[in-house]
Amino acid sequence: MAKDKIVLAYSGGLDTSVEIAWLKNKGYDVIACCIDVGEGKDLEKIKEKGLAVGAVESVVIDAKEEFAQEYCLPALQSHAYYEDKYPLVSALSRPLIVKILVEVAKKYGAVAIAHGCTGKGNDQVRFDVGIRALAPEMKIEDPIRETHWSREEEIDYAKENGIPVPINKKSPYSIDENLWGRANECGILEDPWASAPADAYDRSVDIKDAPDEPEIITISFEQGVPVKLNDEKLSLASLIMKLDKIAGKHGIGRIDHVENRLIGIKSREIYECPAATVLLTAHKDIEDITLDKTLDHFKPIVEKEIADLIYNGLWFSPLMDSLLAFIKTSQKDVNGIVRVKLFKGNVICEGRKSPNSLYDEKLATYTAADEFDQEAALGFIKLYGLPTQVYAQVHQKQAGQSNGHK
Amino acid sequence: MAKDKIVLAYSGGLDTSVEIAWLKNKGYDVIACCIDVGEGKDLEKIKEKGLAVGAVESVVIDAKEEFAQEYCLPALQSHAYYEDKYPLVSALSRPLIVKILVEVAKKYGAVAIAHGCTGKGNDQVRFDVGIRALAPEMKIEDPIRETHWSREEEIDYAKENGIPVPINKKSPYSIDENLWGRANECGILEDPWASAPADAYDRSVDIKDAPDEPEIITISFEQGVPVKLNDEKLSLASLIMKLDKIAGKHGIGRIDHVENRLIGIKSREIYECPAATVLLTAHKDIEDITLDKTLDHFKPIVEKEIADLIYNGLWFSPLMDSLLAFIKTSQKDVNGIVRVKLFKGNVICEGRKSPNSLYDEKLATYTAADEFDQEAALGFIKLYGLPTQVYAQVHQKQAGQSNGHK
Amino acid sequence: MAKDKIVLAYSGGLDTSVEIAWLKNKGYDVIACCIDVGEGKDLEKIKEKGLAVGAVESVVIDAKEEFAQEYCLPALQSHAYYEDKYPLVSALSRPLIVKILVEVAKKYGAVAIAHGCTGKGNDQVRFDVGIRALAPEMKIEDPIRETHWSREEEIDYAKENGIPVPINKKSPYSIDENLWGRANECGILEDPWASAPADAYDRSVDIKDAPDEPEIITISFEQGVPVKLNDEKLSLASLIMKLDKIAGKHGIGRIDHVENRLIGIKSREIYECPAATVLLTAHKDIEDITLDKTLDHFKPIVEKEIADLIYNGLWFSPLMDSLLAFIKTSQKDVNGIVRVKLFKGNVICEGRKSPNSLYDEKLATYTAADEFDQEAALGFIKLYGLPTQVYAQVHQKQAGQSNGHK
Amino acid sequence: MAKDKIVLAYSGGLDTSVEIAWLKNKGYDVIACCIDVGEGKDLEKIKEKGLAVGAVESVVIDAKEEFAQEYCLPALQSHAYYEDKYPLVSALSRPLIVKILVEVAKKYGAVAIAHGCTGKGNDQVRFDVGIRALAPEMKIEDPIRETHWSREEEIDYAKENGIPVPINKKSPYSIDENLWGRANECGILEDPWASAPADAYDRSVDIKDAPDEPEIITISFEQGVPVKLNDEKLSLASLIMKLDKIAGKHGIGRIDHVENRLIGIKSREIYECPAATVLLTAHKDIEDITLDKTLDHFKPIVEKEIADLIYNGLWFSPLMDSLLAFIKTSQKDVNGIVRVKLFKGNVICEGRKSPNSLYDEKLATYTAADEFDQEAALGFIKLYGLPTQVYAQVHQKQAGQSNGHK
Repeated sequence: MAKDKIVLAYSGGLDTSVEIAWLKNKGYDVIACCIDVGEGKDLEKIKEKGLAVGAVESVVIDAKEEFAQEYCLPALQSHAYYEDKYPLVSALSRPLIVKILVEVAKKYGAVAIAHGCTGKGNDQVRFDVGIRALAPEMKIEDPIRETHWSREEEIDYAKENGIPVPINKKSPYSIDENLWGRANECGILEDPWASAPADAYDRSVDIKDAPDEPEIITISFEQGVPVKLNDEKLSLASLIMKLDKIAGKHGIGRIDHVENRLIGIKSREIYECPAATVLLTAHKDIEDITLDKTLDHFKPIVEKEIADLIYNGLWFSPLMDSLLAFIKTSQKDVNGIVRVKLFKGNVICEGRKSPNSLYDEKLATYTAADEFDQEAALGFIKLYGLPTQVYAQVHQKQAGQSNGHK
Repeated sequence: MAKDKIVLAYSGGLDTSVEIAWLKNKGYDVIACCIDVGEGKDLEKIKEKGLAVGAVESVVIDAKEEFAQEYCLPALQSHAYYEDKYPLVSALSRPLIVKILVEVAKKYGAVAIAHGCTGKGNDQVRFDVGIRALAPEMKIEDPIRETHWSREEEIDYAKENGIPVPINKKSPYSIDENLWGRANECGILEDPWASAPADAYDRSVDIKDAPDEPEIITISFEQGVPVKLNDEKLSLASLIMKLDKIAGKHGIGRIDHVENRLIGIKSREIYECPAATVLLTAHKDIEDITLDKTLDHFKPIVEKEIADLIYNGLWFSPLMDSLLAFIKTSQKDVNGIVRVKLFKGNVICEGRKSPNSLYDEKLATYTAADEFDQEAALGFIKLYGLPTQVYAQVHQKQAGQSNGHK
Repeated sequence: MAKDKIVLAYSGGLDTSVEIAWLKNKGYDVIACCIDVGEGKDLEKIKEKGLAVGAVESVVIDAKEEFAQEYCLPALQSHAYYEDKYPLVSALSRPLIVKILVEVAKKYGAVAIAHGCTGKGNDQVRFDVGIRALAPEMKIEDPIRETHWSREEEIDYAKENGIPVPINKKSPYSIDENLWGRANECGILEDPWASAPADAYDRSVDIKDAPDEPEIITISFEQGVPVKLNDEKLSLASLIMKLDKIAGKHGIGRIDHVENRLIGIKSREIYECPAATVLLTAHKDIEDITLDKTLDHFKPIVEKEIADLIYNGLWFSPLMDSLLAFIKTSQKDVNGIVRVKLFKGNVICEGRKSPNSLYDEKLATYTAADEFDQEAALGFIKLYGLPTQVYAQVHQKQAGQSNGHK
Repeated sequence: MAKDKIVLAYSGGLDTSVEIAWLKNKGYDVIACCIDVGEGKDLEKIKEKGLAVGAVESVVIDAKEEFAQEYCLPALQSHAYYEDKYPLVSALSRPLIVKILVEVAKKYGAVAIAHGCTGKGNDQVRFDVGIRALAPEMKIEDPIRETHWSREEEIDYAKENGIPVPINKKSPYSIDENLWGRANECGILEDPWASAPADAYDRSVDIKDAPDEPEIITISFEQGVPVKLNDEKLSLASLIMKLDKIAGKHGIGRIDHVENRLIGIKSREIYECPAATVLLTAHKDIEDITLDKTLDHFKPIVEKEIADLIYNGLWFSPLMDSLLAFIKTSQKDVNGIVRVKLFKGNVICEGRKSPNSLYDEKLATYTAADEFDQEAALGFIKLYGLPTQVYAQVHQKQAGQSNGHK
């Protein structure tokens, strides 16, 4: 009788290789599926390894450009920071990975999908809920959460099942990485009073080691999309990767954050997001001159909700669809160029211009070119301050000379 | 017959000295009132000058500690940034200045209050509305807005009225300053594509000129109040002033912002807030470990409203009273120490601890000390993901194999 | 030399007829433009009258269906109530009227637009700002605001200019009306302690006079659009007009509201919105079973902003465009039928069903058919309550047996 | 050896009587604790029954006044409606019941607390999380959730353990009740298309049976507290109970709602809240004339969060403490009298007045008494509409005659 097929999110490392064996032992035909969202993986090698350790099929997919266009871009346009600090590295790639796993599962007629998230992190929620959103009929397996093995137990299981075990010592950290950044937790980082050691970082240099001269770049936006870096037209994935190197060289994008996980605990995380940090700063700067005040002031409410939904694994939800429709419409005027100075960990927007800039020098100026009608201000203040005045008068009458703010 | 008395917000400079003459010519007895909120003024000299140029009384008040305690502190605890960028320098001092002007006016039996704001800025609104809130019966005079003089006309008027005119060329900038920072506009800054020149800054060095070695400091908080800098207990005003020098030396706190004014235009502003930037960053960091997630996630909504009210001149309003009651209550657990690295324009919180930290290493750890119940996660995800699953099933049933997110 | 042309929003009444004369005397060629948004106007008669009192052109436009589709529908789908009470009668028609006035002005080569709003209401803002949004080059005239005439002065001017003056006494009320409802202010209503007299109402009966038997109707929605009333397919304008009669007969839709005007004062208004009240209630009810919880909970934030923008005359704004994109996307699943009982002023949704209802009886039931996994609840509560527990433990440890909520 | 003591939330009915036996059989000494929050219980009889069916102690507490003052009042002042519809009946009493259970447990040295909530409702979360907030060291037992018995199994267990079984047939409904209202679910109500039958209601008459004459009442507020009903000074609990009878007689307060439960499903509920409905309507009406516009417009955001926290079982949380501090401060001006007409299910506020009303007839009037400065409106509109105008001009220049709203 044919075995049930399962698609496994496969990275090529020890953990997911062991998972192939475990799922096979559980009776599945395993389809290993490795998706590159910008970790710089050697896809061919991983494909072979998947087969070598027991998968019946090994699928590898370069999803960098799709990740950039469909996930990083909305996050950028939404200024999506979780808790005003974390630009959503892992959380952002999960929906795309889930989407591809589901597509592969449907293509190969699989009945189940497996991932290897631990039972105390956010990612298990994002995978499980994402899969339920796109394929509620699919069974979900999570060997890590189910076995709850120690490192030693895992190595023993690997040896018993002929999985090669790397000889070098395991990193003390737990790392996840993609185009938009790199997330790091565990080890010494679990003490929130301890400084993150140098080896916790990988994509950015220490400020001390950054160049002593600033680097000036320009980023051009069309309808909210960064389309050029220094006048060079680039696909979004390419632009991000190129900018990441430049910004990382200047020590930009390190984040040290104690955050509230979805599953009820606080955790301390170290993020590195060189390109994302620059793009988020520049995009806000071009919005400052192209968005009308009312839009400028309401958009952050939408942004916060988007960041929360992404973090909480609800990318595939009717609310997200509606929020993204808002964001998309909001970007129609976000055109222009920002000149940014990168220097010693700093991202400094020094100049910005746009064909549809709402900054009007003739209105803003204090020189003789002034076109602002200063007489109007008196009328404005009179009506704007009228509720305050009525309130003060009413309360003064009530209380003699005191007023309501004592 | 006795003349009507008027209290004038007096700075000692040419503009407000001319205003004394103008108000005198209009028939008032002028009471000059100079309030120090941290500009480092020579109050005695200003007092004398006020009398010299025609005031009948000259009052000077050191309000630095009151400003720190009653205005900077709530702004700090509210992480009050206007448009997520500007920590509210001028806007923050206006209510205190208005409050003192009103107190002086009542003490001296004045019937009017004068300030010298231009007719196209936010400050005129803040003064006028603030005065109406505290003393709606008071007449308001604004010589600048009324005369709308050019520099030349002002100098002519000064000469005619015996006001000494400084011989040095006027700064191209319009500057306002206090404990919490320094605001600069006009001149070349009116071109948002132009970089702010070196002479636009005063309280911070260029990053290039900042020390090549980082400086590590600690800030201790008690119920949300910064009480110690490097283990030294200081009054809040003293702590801010001391920290400002340290942070300014490291090039910290420069902000280049195109903002939406209350009165309908965009303007480009350069701010310098060395101490405020460090305190705001550190305070958020200590909140990260001491505030419960739900409070952490709702507080920003209150913060944004407070920032808007301050910017919009509505400090004295029933809404502000209610918002500040929220903030005050929210601070009862905000205790602890943050270790901050100041380096080349960067404020890096490297460590944080609190006697009532909600970060629980035994829950967060991935080591054997783990006390987190991983089994619970399955139940959590099941119910948390249930709406998603039902939605997917309903829409799958409706549409064959497609779902609602296509 | 050819005179400048001006388009006047013309109603056929005394006020706007006098305005034709006034504008003519000011040197304009006046184009009277009467737009029917559901007041039940006799357009042909008004057209003639416009010419009779001096207009060079008289244009009449039936805009009822456009008003229903493009303005009432978004308001319905946004549950747009100003201050949670007023379903935006006048505010809703202003943008459409402005849009048509601008179109007519451009068609006839007019250089100015005139309306007759008073200088203390919201409508002047809505007209002026709306015109600036669509045709910033257009001059705006407002004879009422400029002349500020008493009733007697107006009648004198009418007589001098050959405008017929109606012999019956003027209504004590100021009324505005359209498909979505009827607004009434002035007269005795200015005393907020006085009950609104019977003659303040027109489109609904007193509850006392409503039938003693309820009437059961059904309303069918497709993607958030009410498409059928009692199984009869109707255009939206027709559906609203038909429902208005039915609901008005049952005394439905009377609102007595003291509201905060845009221009700084509170005013007391009487509204009658029979159809709107029923539709808004039924639409919310069908959303209750078709919208996912997260969308259900965020949508009110968008709704409140839309209501404020409409009230504040900012329909034509980039923020509105973005908000409406959100609303439009949110409606894709809003299909189904609501059964509504209309009875003595009450709108009671008694039943609702949808092909894509998310209400799942097998999950919700307490009978043996129950499919809900009750074991999952324990895990859910454990993680959901974890922050609360950690907070309690930390504060208990700190304070002996007391905790943070004393 | 002494047995562990457990405190059980006891109602005197079959379910909780069986729970006494079950907990006893599990080895506990059971302390039955019956708390009256307004169900009209016969406390003495319940006390005896608790002992009769096996409790070692039987404690009864009349908590009506505490419930009114400490829970109903904040809910009233917060206009706390879950999903804009349900005024939080059960959710509101849970924190008080938990608080008393914990107090009793501490007084008697109990180590555990028991409640009898089902495993698929919200109440289990409210009890469990509430207990963890106040006494995280306490063990929690839930016999219903653990045994998951059918009706037959429960009756068998009762008989085996000598618990008297009532002979009348069990109600098809699941009902919970207190001062603030009555909640009803299950049975036919599980079909959201079915009308709620007459026997689903208890505290209000059908509109048909309500008097054919309206009843006019007045409610007086002091600092947001309803202190008088028809000029009679009453304690809050007494006022609520008296008003409940009056309003119920007029068919007021019936709510038919499909809501989103905390635990991931939608459920259909029937509520009856006669007094609450009247008080919530009248309180909003008195706020309309006493609260300043900015407070009026922000308060609903706080209100929504409070309603969510109550519904979600997070009454005892730092966020709730902060939100209630906001609400408390917001009420300082909420003084005055509302005249309300109760008629055929309708609550109609017909008049309102306050010693500190902000409604100013001299500003609002259109008569000759008008004190509003209509000239100011022009200046106001100019600046208020300036961003719109600049936006239009910029986009017109870019696109010929088109603008940004096409």
